[in-house]
Amino acid sequence: MKAFMDEDFLLSTPTAVRLYHEVAEKLPVLDYHCHISPREIAEDRKFENISQIWLGGDHYKWRVMRAAGITEDKITGNATDREKFHAFASVMPELMGNPIYHWSHLELQRGFGISEVLTAENADMIYDQCNEILKGHSARSLMRKFHVHAICTTDDPVDDLRFHGQIASETGMEIRVLPAFRPDRAVNIDKEGFSDYIRSLSEAVGRRLTSTAAVIDALCERMDHFSAHGCLCADHGLDYCMYEEPDPRLADKAFSAAMAGECPEKRLADAYKTRVTIACAKKYAEKNWVMQIHFGCLRNINRPQFAKLGADTGYDAVNSQSGVGNLAPLLNAFVENEGLPRTILYSLDPTDNTAITTIMACFQGGSMAGKLQQGSAWWFNDSRMGMRKQLTELAANGVFGRFVGMLTDSRSFLSYTRHEYFRRILCELVGEWVESGQYPEDKKYLDQLVTNLSYENTKKFFGF
Amino acid sequence: MKAFMDEDFLLSTPTAVRLYHEVAEKLPVLDYHCHISPREIAEDRKFENISQIWLGGDHYKWRVMRAAGITEDKITGNATDREKFHAFASVMPELMGNPIYHWSHLELQRGFGISEVLTAENADMIYDQCNEILKGHSARSLMRKFHVHAICTTDDPVDDLRFHGQIASETGMEIRVLPAFRPDRAVNIDKEGFSDYIRSLSEAVGRRLTSTAAVIDALCERMDHFSAHGCLCADHGLDYCMYEEPDPRLADKAFSAAMAGECPEKRLADAYKTRVTIACAKKYAEKNWVMQIHFGCLRNINRPQFAKLGADTGYDAVNSQSGVGNLAPLLNAFVENEGLPRTILYSLDPTDNTAITTIMACFQGGSMAGKLQQGSAWWFNDSRMGMRKQLTELAANGVFGRFVGMLTDSRSFLSYTRHEYFRRILCELVGEWVESGQYPEDKKYLDQLVTNLSYENTKKFFGF
Amino acid sequence: MKAFMDEDFLLSTPTAVRLYHEVAEKLPVLDYHCHISPREIAEDRKFENISQIWLGGDHYKWRVMRAAGITEDKITGNATDREKFHAFASVMPELMGNPIYHWSHLELQRGFGISEVLTAENADMIYDQCNEILKGHSARSLMRKFHVHAICTTDDPVDDLRFHGQIASETGMEIRVLPAFRPDRAVNIDKEGFSDYIRSLSEAVGRRLTSTAAVIDALCERMDHFSAHGCLCADHGLDYCMYEEPDPRLADKAFSAAMAGECPEKRLADAYKTRVTIACAKKYAEKNWVMQIHFGCLRNINRPQFAKLGADTGYDAVNSQSGVGNLAPLLNAFVENEGLPRTILYSLDPTDNTAITTIMACFQGGSMAGKLQQGSAWWFNDSRMGMRKQLTELAANGVFGRFVGMLTDSRSFLSYTRHEYFRRILCELVGEWVESGQYPEDKKYLDQLVTNLSYENTKKFFGF
Repeated sequence: MKAFMDEDFLLSTPTAVRLYHEVAEKLPVLDYHCHISPREIAEDRKFENISQIWLGGDHYKWRVMRAAGITEDKITGNATDREKFHAFASVMPELMGNPIYHWSHLELQRGFGISEVLTAENADMIYDQCNEILKGHSARSLMRKFHVHAICTTDDPVDDLRFHGQIASETGMEIRVLPAFRPDRAVNIDKEGFSDYIRSLSEAVGRRLTSTAAVIDALCERMDHFSAHGCLCADHGLDYCMYEEPDPRLADKAFSAAMAGECPEKRLADAYKTRVTIACAKKYAEKNWVMQIHFGCLRNINRPQFAKLGADTGYDAVNSQSGVGNLAPLLNAFVENEGLPRTILYSLDPTDNTAITTIMACFQGGSMAGKLQQGSAWWFNDSRMGMRKQLTELAANGVFGRFVGMLTDSRSFLSYTRHEYFRRILCELVGEWVESGQYPEDKKYLDQLVTNLSYENTKKFFGF
Repeated sequence: MKAFMDEDFLLSTPTAVRLYHEVAEKLPVLDYHCHISPREIAEDRKFENISQIWLGGDHYKWRVMRAAGITEDKITGNATDREKFHAFASVMPELMGNPIYHWSHLELQRGFGISEVLTAENADMIYDQCNEILKGHSARSLMRKFHVHAICTTDDPVDDLRFHGQIASETGMEIRVLPAFRPDRAVNIDKEGFSDYIRSLSEAVGRRLTSTAAVIDALCERMDHFSAHGCLCADHGLDYCMYEEPDPRLADKAFSAAMAGECPEKRLADAYKTRVTIACAKKYAEKNWVMQIHFGCLRNINRPQFAKLGADTGYDAVNSQSGVGNLAPLLNAFVENEGLPRTILYSLDPTDNTAITTIMACFQGGSMAGKLQQGSAWWFNDSRMGMRKQLTELAANGVFGRFVGMLTDSRSFLSYTRHEYFRRILCELVGEWVESGQYPEDKKYLDQLVTNLSYENTKKFFGF
Repeated sequence: MKAFMDEDFLLSTPTAVRLYHEVAEKLPVLDYHCHISPREIAEDRKFENISQIWLGGDHYKWRVMRAAGITEDKITGNATDREKFHAFASVMPELMGNPIYHWSHLELQRGFGISEVLTAENADMIYDQCNEILKGHSARSLMRKFHVHAICTTDDPVDDLRFHGQIASETGMEIRVLPAFRPDRAVNIDKEGFSDYIRSLSEAVGRRLTSTAAVIDALCERMDHFSAHGCLCADHGLDYCMYEEPDPRLADKAFSAAMAGECPEKRLADAYKTRVTIACAKKYAEKNWVMQIHFGCLRNINRPQFAKLGADTGYDAVNSQSGVGNLAPLLNAFVENEGLPRTILYSLDPTDNTAITTIMACFQGGSMAGKLQQGSAWWFNDSRMGMRKQLTELAANGVFGRFVGMLTDSRSFLSYTRHEYFRRILCELVGEWVESGQYPEDKKYLDQLVTNLSYENTKKFFGF
């Protein structure tokens, strides 16, 4: 029996052990997609206690707490931080097979040097230990502890990026904190708040926006602002991947309706979204940015709870109508418009893997290796089995050696252990293939491959 | 090499072996969803031969017999019971990888003490052995042999439940045989026989039913009748999970059409179904019943054979348009109507697992642990791989420790071995996680977890 | 650690090793679906170099080369064959986990006796070695080397089959090279070139075709021509499995529109396709042919590349809207029309497996064992994991022992190693089930099973 989460956690063969400890473990972290607050880095936030980091905004944990019968006051309510930590700890033993169980223990081990198993019994003691250690830490010191070299935050086009500017201007701040351009609110014309948002965008560019073309121009102008702050990538979040002929008249019809406070009909809304997305892609290609497309999410489906707690509080799910098939005409439209950037595709529906890998293969080429990528297993799929499945299915229909690798998608300064988790899973999988005679035991290639998938491919793909 | 189906069948680690034999094996069976005939228990039916139990109504076996080239006379036709048994035995060696192969041998082992491998060669001898042993058995003695403490049958709202009443009134009958409320015929307005059924329901409540509201009232009245017989749960079987705004006018339009012998258009039919389902859910919540929702089935797709043999004869399949996405607005409607009962969700399409687990997580809360559940791998998924998949995918996005566990969904008094099969698979999976260092080897937690998932969670969830 | 791709490649248990080497390895190859050119066999084509075989028409390899950054001139362009081989070799080390990696090395080993690992470094040397060996080989000698007893090519109804006739008439040609009837161009009424094709078909039968019924008659006449050349099977390739009521008026409306150069609306087009498909099935049943249905493919989705390079150049993908649910009414229509032939079903979407196996089970019977079959994992699923998944999921809901087995679907005379790959995966899976106590270690049954799934079932099913 292997010991619980020891140094060889998830590594069951000598090849896996060697690859992880000799190669993967030492590489820096490039976290190219996260939801870290740039303000917290600019201000080098300190944390009074571990509940603030662990439970302050982590809707993954909130969901399992709710499912385990914890009352809402100890989740998002008025209970004390100590009570909330205790409540979460009491749930931990029931989370067998859930990545939260491993993430939490990895964070205790790497962040705090605590290798005990967290339960209700030792919750108070561990709470105190963590908080004591947190006194010596801050946002930046945690990032340094995890060897983070660069991150990309997630930022709205109207953001002035002042915190990014402030961080970049500091001497002695060696960690790159770059913005990423996320124009969802300008694209998702069927969501509440669209017209208000267009007015904010209008203010940001200093002119009225009265057509789809004007919105596109405004977005392009804001991209230049982002470029000036070192931005390397954009990110589009779609409830479903849409495609409709990007007819400007249909798009403008949707735009007029939405600005008049009406919800445009689906076909018109899709024409607008498609048109804006294609135009953005072209601009990204010109700027040599990476485009990320996340799709397949049902958001805020428990409406009474959404009304109480707002978005991103644990009420989202997989959209089994993800629209993955529309990737084909959408990417084709990028090509026909002569604007296909380097692109990473993510679906929240894990059954889309083979469709994604085979569709994207149709758009590879032009002497850029790995131009199209399937993103690492995302959100509800970001588990040991989800990552193995994504890696295995990508390898079967793609070029494994070109995979762009891992990201956290997290709001927390402790989540960098997810890169460790990924690297262990990667080394284990490679180890299995080698030790079972499916790939040669060639140290040079293996070390290069693990280095590439843990670090180098990301660096090159984004241009960090 | 492990011996064929010995006492450590499916258990490959010391942890798995210990958990099964020390913990899981000894626990009683609570079979909360089955299709056992209450009459056969009331009358304590005896069986002349094993074909009557094994082949009398088991369309799982009929399907593989047809696929293996057995003629229909030896399946549902006029051949003798001995001939039918022989025909089935001759197919057995070809069923490698099919759960029927394991179920059948487990039933021979546990029910009859026969550990031989069943083939055409020994079929006659085993037939005689089984029949000899059956002389000393009856419906009830078989249930006792398998440590069955309680079952829920599947009953129509118009049923008078006389057999349940008879069983409950007997002294010395320690096995609880409870009805479960299955209002499918009142919900599925687009199926043949709907108007006739409404007339039966009308008779059962002693008044004419002229609107959706009247049907709902009638169902609620019948629920009270079921409650009086100890009913703890209801079950809705849907070809696909529907959702349409439950507008009473649309629902009534559908109702009028259906009562006039027309098939209502889909949107209207869905409005009716949605409205009735929401109303039922509210009443279940009030009564503190569990609601089960089974969806995703194409029924009777071979129409000539359906015309010959009727329903439940082996002509159903997975509906890949299961409507899993409609679970989100449907459950939300339950919440907005202040009537979300404890609910178990089952899709026949195994690719729905992650969608289900993530949707149901959005409706957890309110201090009831595990209020929403994904049901154990159902019907075509009730196999070793199907159960592992369901357990693994549930664990990845839910709270494994709160899972409500196994049921047989069977018509046979020998099928309780499916609980054994489940428990072995569960212990093996837990053993893997522990022995590979993914979960601590903590006897207290492990024993509790296996006890909960095999017995205690079911007992508490249903209130047995 | 197992050695890289040695004689026990993919075989990890003694049972697997024994079954493969004692049983599977020695059996001849019946390749019942491929895209080999009958002309190349008739003319006994010789190959100047390995690039001609490996890279001349293999869009699987082209896709990974594009994804790895190779420029198009070294893929489908004007670079020399040596340069192309070198380019492909340079990609090989990155193809960990891709079946191309194993296929290529198996082909080097079995075709050329080369057991080195192919890389950029030794590419030139291996190129020369292969070409030297190819001097002593031809199309036929390669087929003999791989113990090919019979193949079915893929042929258009208007084909005169002259090369098949020529091959059949030769003395001393012991390999059967049979045509297969592929009427896609007469069925896919919504594709470009339909009306031109109907004119070719018209010429082939010597009369004008002015209705759906006339097209059906013409196809039936051509089937007789194929029968005269020993044809045993037909193959239908569908972008999605359609079903629409096969109303002759709707079908004819679609036909008239298409012949007038218009694209018929989808409902009409589907009525035409359904009607022609049902009529073909009936004729196949009469002729005792096997019908294959391949569906679920998005074709030519990168339109600019399609315009440059044409079809079958690596721009196809999985269609996640495969229409698998329509198999139910389509097969039912075959039955109701009294014309259900022996049928093999293939979906390109791997998430359709359980739907297919459960739908086809509803149409088994009539004393023909294994009348309906799910085809082996196809195209993008033709990988180690894809085949294991198909075998496991088929076994769980079907009769494993009746599976019709493997085919190459290839254009190359070296691809017969895919049968070896399949047989190794099969023996490994069976070995796992036996060694873990899930199936008895009964040499007689095991040897028979492996023989059946590697060779005998195919022979009987097709009538080779």
